[in-house]
Amino acid sequence: MSPASPDIRFLFEPRGVAVVGASPDPGKIGHRIVGNLQAMGARCPIYPVNPKGGEILGLPVARTAAEIGAAVDVAVIAVPVGRVLDAAADCARAGVGFLVVVTSGYAETGNLEGERQLVAFARAHGMRVLGPNIFGLFSAKASLNAGFGPREIRPGNVAIITQSGAMGGAMIGMTAAEGIGLSAIIPVGNKADLDEADLLEYLRDDPATEIVLIYIEGVKQGQRLVRALEATTRVKPVIVIKSGRSRRGAMAAASHTGSLAGADEVFDDIMRQVGVLRAEHLQEALAWCGFLTGAPRPAGDRTLIVTNGGGAGVAAADACEKYGIPLQDDFEMLSRVFAEVTPDIGSTKNPVDLTGQATAAHYTDALRRALGEPAIHAVIAIYCETALLAFDDLPDAIQRLARAYRAAGRPVAFCLLGGTRVTECIARLRAAGVAVFNEVYTAAACLGALNAWDRHRRAAETAPAPAECDEDRAVSIDFAAVRAALGPARADGRRFLLAREGQALLRAIGMRPPRSLVAGTLEEAVAAAATIGYPVVLKIVSKQVVHKSDVGGVALDLENRDEVIAAYQAILQSCRQRVPGLRIGGVEVTEMVRGGTEVIVGARRDPAFGPIVMFGLGGIYVEVLADVAFRAVPLSQCEALSMIKETRAHRLLLGVRGEERRDIDAVTDALQRLAVLVGTNDEVTDVEINPLVVYPAPEGATAVDIRVAIRGESPPG
Amino acid sequence: MSPASPDIRFLFEPRGVAVVGASPDPGKIGHRIVGNLQAMGARCPIYPVNPKGGEILGLPVARTAAEIGAAVDVAVIAVPVGRVLDAAADCARAGVGFLVVVTSGYAETGNLEGERQLVAFARAHGMRVLGPNIFGLFSAKASLNAGFGPREIRPGNVAIITQSGAMGGAMIGMTAAEGIGLSAIIPVGNKADLDEADLLEYLRDDPATEIVLIYIEGVKQGQRLVRALEATTRVKPVIVIKSGRSRRGAMAAASHTGSLAGADEVFDDIMRQVGVLRAEHLQEALAWCGFLTGAPRPAGDRTLIVTNGGGAGVAAADACEKYGIPLQDDFEMLSRVFAEVTPDIGSTKNPVDLTGQATAAHYTDALRRALGEPAIHAVIAIYCETALLAFDDLPDAIQRLARAYRAAGRPVAFCLLGGTRVTECIARLRAAGVAVFNEVYTAAACLGALNAWDRHRRAAETAPAPAECDEDRAVSIDFAAVRAALGPARADGRRFLLAREGQALLRAIGMRPPRSLVAGTLEEAVAAAATIGYPVVLKIVSKQVVHKSDVGGVALDLENRDEVIAAYQAILQSCRQRVPGLRIGGVEVTEMVRGGTEVIVGARRDPAFGPIVMFGLGGIYVEVLADVAFRAVPLSQCEALSMIKETRAHRLLLGVRGEERRDIDAVTDALQRLAVLVGTNDEVTDVEINPLVVYPAPEGATAVDIRVAIRGESPPG
Repeated sequence: MSPASPDIRFLFEPRGVAVVGASPDPGKIGHRIVGNLQAMGARCPIYPVNPKGGEILGLPVARTAAEIGAAVDVAVIAVPVGRVLDAAADCARAGVGFLVVVTSGYAETGNLEGERQLVAFARAHGMRVLGPNIFGLFSAKASLNAGFGPREIRPGNVAIITQSGAMGGAMIGMTAAEGIGLSAIIPVGNKADLDEADLLEYLRDDPATEIVLIYIEGVKQGQRLVRALEATTRVKPVIVIKSGRSRRGAMAAASHTGSLAGADEVFDDIMRQVGVLRAEHLQEALAWCGFLTGAPRPAGDRTLIVTNGGGAGVAAADACEKYGIPLQDDFEMLSRVFAEVTPDIGSTKNPVDLTGQATAAHYTDALRRALGEPAIHAVIAIYCETALLAFDDLPDAIQRLARAYRAAGRPVAFCLLGGTRVTECIARLRAAGVAVFNEVYTAAACLGALNAWDRHRRAAETAPAPAECDEDRAVSIDFAAVRAALGPARADGRRFLLAREGQALLRAIGMRPPRSLVAGTLEEAVAAAATIGYPVVLKIVSKQVVHKSDVGGVALDLENRDEVIAAYQAILQSCRQRVPGLRIGGVEVTEMVRGGTEVIVGARRDPAFGPIVMFGLGGIYVEVLADVAFRAVPLSQCEALSMIKETRAHRLLLGVRGEERRDIDAVTDALQRLAVLVGTNDEVTDVEINPLVVYPAPEGATAVDIRVAIRGESPPG
Repeated sequence: MSPASPDIRFLFEPRGVAVVGASPDPGKIGHRIVGNLQAMGARCPIYPVNPKGGEILGLPVARTAAEIGAAVDVAVIAVPVGRVLDAAADCARAGVGFLVVVTSGYAETGNLEGERQLVAFARAHGMRVLGPNIFGLFSAKASLNAGFGPREIRPGNVAIITQSGAMGGAMIGMTAAEGIGLSAIIPVGNKADLDEADLLEYLRDDPATEIVLIYIEGVKQGQRLVRALEATTRVKPVIVIKSGRSRRGAMAAASHTGSLAGADEVFDDIMRQVGVLRAEHLQEALAWCGFLTGAPRPAGDRTLIVTNGGGAGVAAADACEKYGIPLQDDFEMLSRVFAEVTPDIGSTKNPVDLTGQATAAHYTDALRRALGEPAIHAVIAIYCETALLAFDDLPDAIQRLARAYRAAGRPVAFCLLGGTRVTECIARLRAAGVAVFNEVYTAAACLGALNAWDRHRRAAETAPAPAECDEDRAVSIDFAAVRAALGPARADGRRFLLAREGQALLRAIGMRPPRSLVAGTLEEAVAAAATIGYPVVLKIVSKQVVHKSDVGGVALDLENRDEVIAAYQAILQSCRQRVPGLRIGGVEVTEMVRGGTEVIVGARRDPAFGPIVMFGLGGIYVEVLADVAFRAVPLSQCEALSMIKETRAHRLLLGVRGEERRDIDAVTDALQRLAVLVGTNDEVTDVEINPLVVYPAPEGATAVDIRVAIRGESPPG
């Protein structure tokens, strides 16, 4: 048994830090790390370690970590890859808790075994590994810049976890330049041991961290990450930038971090599920960080736009619609509050347009009035440079207003549009910690991000309306029957279930397949059709055929005996012709399902996130329209409902052109059953019910076709 | 008859400029305009006009324009709205060509009549009006800043046309701050007379203008605008920002410019049709302007990413996919060219990752090698701040590289990521006219914009592949039969055609309706079904019912006599019940169309753009999925094909899951026929064929249902 892990707190607040591989040569990384630690003024002793001893930058050098003779929680390892294990052994003797392994040459160059050995040794000796292949670690709490990264770090309240060193370096520089302060920077590199989930555990409870920003390229232990994110977003906003979303980007990510990107749609949906704000790129993430730091939690989302330029107001209204920000539209109230400061040619309808005639006094007056009106929950304040609006005291006025809004618990996003004076004003305000923007779309995007996080947090805190869905509704499935349905395929070493096995599985998880019989002869088929009742569908049964319609193996809507006879013969002929040597297990005769809305429900084991469920528009449309939503398991009814609502298929289920509302409960039920199936059974890798025909409520749904894949094994012999 | 219009050239290169309403009071707009003209150093005489005479800013004041006694092409009118007509009369006497009407209080406040009178007077006296309700006009060619806008204008090669004064002011300031030079700024305000189309006529041929940037809120004469844009984009890039795209934004636009926004999807598609680059917001438009100014025309679109940070390379690859930029993937060539400058832990696969070990020499070497390889058509060059990459001479190196790339006809987008030193470097390079960015997505978006414009220009220059479509294919329709089909509805004062009239119209335009008969009695219905052949569809015929299925007026797939009898009775009962007092014109019996892919084709008169055609996925999906494309008329077969390709329905037409390819030619044919119908007949306001069932090629398509609206008039009596 491994010894207990050290407390993660000591990674961020070490009692002492060793630099193993410290060097007197200023050109070496081992020198720069000691220099960085000194420059930032670490709040704990710094111990350079080098077998040659001596002095580096005025500090005495220990020949080994073990000889330091004081508490050392963190050791930065900057020796060549071949000497890292020896260094780790030395650190183990010194009682080190965390190895920050700067050294590269591990998984990213194919050296998986070296990485495995390093972690195994560390864990066996009560140590954890950060990295390898990283630039170091920064912790504001300990004034600790334990790495060879930039020195220009602005302390503050945003923690950055990054899988890429270059993006980490860029983020450090860009945050400093834009006035965003950092509480910690943790590059995770190859994630050989410590990963995002471990770090979130600390950052979630760290009072100095208001926001967590994660740059990620590949997910390794998705289920752990999902749980850690879920716990963190209830307390503070988490912003994620995920690269490798495109085919070519994923290729590049694989080549430089050795990690797989996974399907971007799945990542995107699961991030939404756990309340993460996903930024597309660095600039977007930084704008959100700047705005969300210290932003008050709004009492609601009814927003006001104040502008001195009509066109900018129009653009802001467009941007609010794009980012889902509802505008306050109580025009009577707006007129009462703003008529006095709005000229006749302006407008008190939201946007409140003060026009180019507005002076600085009008402008600040309007913003103060907005502050006095409880039905205005947030404000986007736009200033366009004009000849009339006196600029001199504008920066101060904005700073005062920003302070007043913060004190009143009212978010305000300032947007300043103009020339060099405005540019300088923006820089000055950002340096003073006021988030101001030079584009109305950015301002709206920031407010939208705050609202999105706040909505998620509220939903997590309060139970949803009982009529809509039941957070606690549980479904149960017949585990023994599931095992029985999978048995024959497992025994045969098959990857796919046959039709009748799929239907047995459907029944085992409590779903309704169409009435169905398998016929071995034409006479049996005719008899089966009579038993089931016309119209019927015929389908080929063969282990060799997965997509039956591709080989002419399906005939729909057969109305009578003659049609069944003709279709039976046509199917056999077509399949035999297209699949030479086909072994046929019979022909399945099924009730023809008519009416209802076709959707698809499915579940699978995602390489990154483990068991996930899927919902979308059914039939051939699922492939063409890509109108699908994903969720990680476990799945509550409310989550199932939310994924349905994300798709356009939702409108079809609500009924279009006078049709009745479909039985959406039956769909959430199906999704939950599939979630339980893949969540409790790791033999099933892929289930797809397509179509699930959903009838008007409360008539339920019929699973017309199911396709099930299980873990593949070569057939015995 | 009105006298001839003055040459638009004199608006931009006047021989003299008068300021009517010039004021000695420094607080007045009439003073600031004179000051602005002087400050910029106008290349023509400036004539302040004020009945009081005297001197303003050292210039002698004329009491009237007429007494100036020299050539005056432009008069800036800055008198109160009640005195503008007198001023115009004075200008007419002085031989002025263009009235730049700064004065507000016209259409934007409801004073439509005043605006109409002003334009009528001007046109009757050989003058054109710019505005009213604008801040003035800037023309670099004449060093003319004839307005009360900002003085901080950087001369250069971008012309701005803006419908919003505030956005115009902001754009002037922002371009100056970002190092983008302007050739002209023309606010159009209420567009009472001169509009975007007039101005494009001049700007298209102006050698000083490389790019036209238009900010627009509402389109007035869409067909003229489309033609002017089409002509301009063949010569130079046109970037359009269109606000008022959301419901609330459109409301705000209507209230401050008095113009209607129109449907955003239509605007978007038509802009793509004519090769306009549509930017979402100011920052995007400015980035494109900065990059496109002086950007060389690329020989192709195979792009290389060079980076010293793996993560930034991954993000850039993602961004390239987003903006449709194909990466060069001849890995053998890439290895040959870049292996020498790429360390072992890096990658020569595109992105070329030089890693954090790269020095400035490696970096510039790699970029020079890319320049030497003809199969690399464009480059995205990313620099992440690191400890190793010496920064000192980087700005100069980038400037040298940018020059070399431009000389070689190779576009290069630089992206610099880092802290304050990088921020300063970006500012310095921009001031020197080098477009550099701080976000890989922005760099990729700019290259994507260049490619999009270049593709459009190439397509306009060269004929498309003959197999795909025929640019010259013309369709003809039977105009007399069209008139005959519309006759009864016009005579009755009806807005909608009855079923049989719609089918007559279909035949008149050369399309194929299903076989169909109208039955007045149950017996006739049964006989009609027998004549047409089972299965059949029954539909109610009534002038009062437009959406037949909403009132239970449709029965599908009736297989035999008994089903027809039952359906006939059910339809009458349901319709009578749901529409009390219903007058029934019979029941239509139609062949049941089966198989094939359902699409929708339509045409209508758009309030902004006039006749347009529409294509989308058919049936109920069109409403739910919003998968539609629009084009302005006239429509070539190639344009018709391009609109089909924009939709997801295209994949359905190509055949999914082993289905045959549908007869896409029949769809382009239908679209062209509808285009001719609405293009030649302004009585038809709306036609919708839904569904058009498209069979496997070459079996054509059947127009199952058509809905036609004509210009409404009250019925006589």
